[in-house]
Amino acid sequence: MSESSWTPQDLVSRSQEAKGFSYSPYSSFRVGAALLTTDQQLYTGCNVENACNNLGICAERTAICKAVSEGHRSFKAIAVASDMMDHYISPCGGCRQFMREFGLQWDVYLSKPDGSFIKKTVEELLPVSFGPEDLRRKKAVPASENSL
Amino acid sequence: MSESSWTPQDLVSRSQEAKGFSYSPYSSFRVGAALLTTDQQLYTGCNVENACNNLGICAERTAICKAVSEGHRSFKAIAVASDMMDHYISPCGGCRQFMREFGLQWDVYLSKPDGSFIKKTVEELLPVSFGPEDLRRKKAVPASENSL
Amino acid sequence: MSESSWTPQDLVSRSQEAKGFSYSPYSSFRVGAALLTTDQQLYTGCNVENACNNLGICAERTAICKAVSEGHRSFKAIAVASDMMDHYISPCGGCRQFMREFGLQWDVYLSKPDGSFIKKTVEELLPVSFGPEDLRRKKAVPASENSL
Amino acid sequence: MSESSWTPQDLVSRSQEAKGFSYSPYSSFRVGAALLTTDQQLYTGCNVENACNNLGICAERTAICKAVSEGHRSFKAIAVASDMMDHYISPCGGCRQFMREFGLQWDVYLSKPDGSFIKKTVEELLPVSFGPEDLRRKKAVPASENSL
Ligand SMILES: [Zn+2]
Ligand SMILES: [Zn+2]
Ligand SMILES: [Zn+2]
Ligand SMILES: [Zn+2]
Repeated sequence: MSESSWTPQDLVSRSQEAKGFSYSPYSSFRVGAALLTTDQQLYTGCNVENACNNLGICAERTAICKAVSEGHRSFKAIAVASDMMDHYISPCGGCRQFMREFGLQWDVYLSKPDGSFIKKTVEELLPVSFGPEDLRRKKAVPASENSL
Repeated sequence: MSESSWTPQDLVSRSQEAKGFSYSPYSSFRVGAALLTTDQQLYTGCNVENACNNLGICAERTAICKAVSEGHRSFKAIAVASDMMDHYISPCGGCRQFMREFGLQWDVYLSKPDGSFIKKTVEELLPVSFGPEDLRRKKAVPASENSL
Repeated sequence: MSESSWTPQDLVSRSQEAKGFSYSPYSSFRVGAALLTTDQQLYTGCNVENACNNLGICAERTAICKAVSEGHRSFKAIAVASDMMDHYISPCGGCRQFMREFGLQWDVYLSKPDGSFIKKTVEELLPVSFGPEDLRRKKAVPASENSL
Repeated sequence: MSESSWTPQDLVSRSQEAKGFSYSPYSSFRVGAALLTTDQQLYTGCNVENACNNLGICAERTAICKAVSEGHRSFKAIAVASDMMDHYISPCGGCRQFMREFGLQWDVYLSKPDGSFIKKTVEELLPVSFGPEDLRRKKAVPASENSL
């Protein structure tokens, strides 16, 4: 598919396909994601659960890790899909923070199984956010004093 | 201290004290939190880092886990403190989701070392949120079909 | 209770009590933990789950965070309890790494509801471990070359 | 590359290449992984850190999520690479648990930058493990009594 040919609807469709690979034996809550890089590469992801539930990984983070591990760090949009019939699936706070690491001004499509969706920016989903800049700000106490 | 005597400024002070226990040898970024339950109990927390950085736990989650492990699940407010001189410390997305598990309409105080703070509700920090209700919604695909 | 009076059986009992506070609506798998510091303070914990399951926190990590947030970083033993009738509950890998941050040579009691238990050291549960020392080892590539 | 042509040394080499994509601005500790499925597909991963350090994802989990999101759940081996000159990089406890979800009897190659490596099974790295079976065991207390 040539550059600029990905529509939001395409992303939603791909996120729905990705949902099919979900490994979610514990919640039976399948989620899929489709991430578009600024240079028009597409990466999909699904949730991967674990018997120790807090060690699982969400679909959105799976997609972003895939892209980063192939050399991409600049993203244009991500679509998210679930099986909830009448409700747009929205990313958890952990995924919002994971997205925010790579910028505040890119798009998140929250979809329903019928393909309808609403669009939010990362910043709209994570206002007043903590981010990479905060780690470089001037501190009241020098780092050297509180490291072990 | 008697019931209803906790002021927002008290919470901020307690979060600053809690920051002193931070175990943050890797980031040298100390964070403290002070959580007030609806029945006026106060629980503090600090960040606890790990050599495998993604296994660490934030100050806000520490405080909430402490309260839950003592029988509390209804919260009124949480204050957060860091060493950033000129910037209000804001909870990460993971902590926002952790707070949201216990309700959307309670207060978060983002503070500076000088004790000044701004107030946000959990819902303001995590709009259009994913939550416990979503796991019970009607699904397009029966759970039995996609469990292993 | 005076110093040195805590027996392994006491720890197991306290971990069973702590299990009663478990917030585990998603897995219905309750876990409790009781941690003994080297200066004989005892901290309990339970698992605290989240609608986004990977943001939950295990009982063992709750107990350790509580202790750290009260100024303790040196531990003697931790007991873990669950509802599994015929099987000793064992810590997940994430908790083993979290324990290991504070040393390899302390004890973990894996228990059953009838109070019976087996003892392992942290090192036995996490052999050939990654740890704090690794972050300080000599690298083939200078840090300055691969930071952003 | 045809079936059965992947050697352990190939996996180590691919994990070293994958390390080059590491997003680790906070720790400057680069890690790469290369995962071989039982049907001879290879997936690579790197660590992806976050300003909120506990939301980052390890190289091993990235590789496994990639494979799962492409339909693979049966694995033969995984190699791990870091920049530590004189020390074999070993997976954290979280990654060991993540590997264990997909079986105990597959191989983990811990490598050095010079390409040398040692082999462990998942079970050797995570003895007496908690796993998927535990969630199905008979409980002393019925699930219905302790769910919310
Ligand atoms: Zn998520
Ligand atoms: Zn946080
Ligand atoms: Zn655990
Ligand atoms: Zn790891």
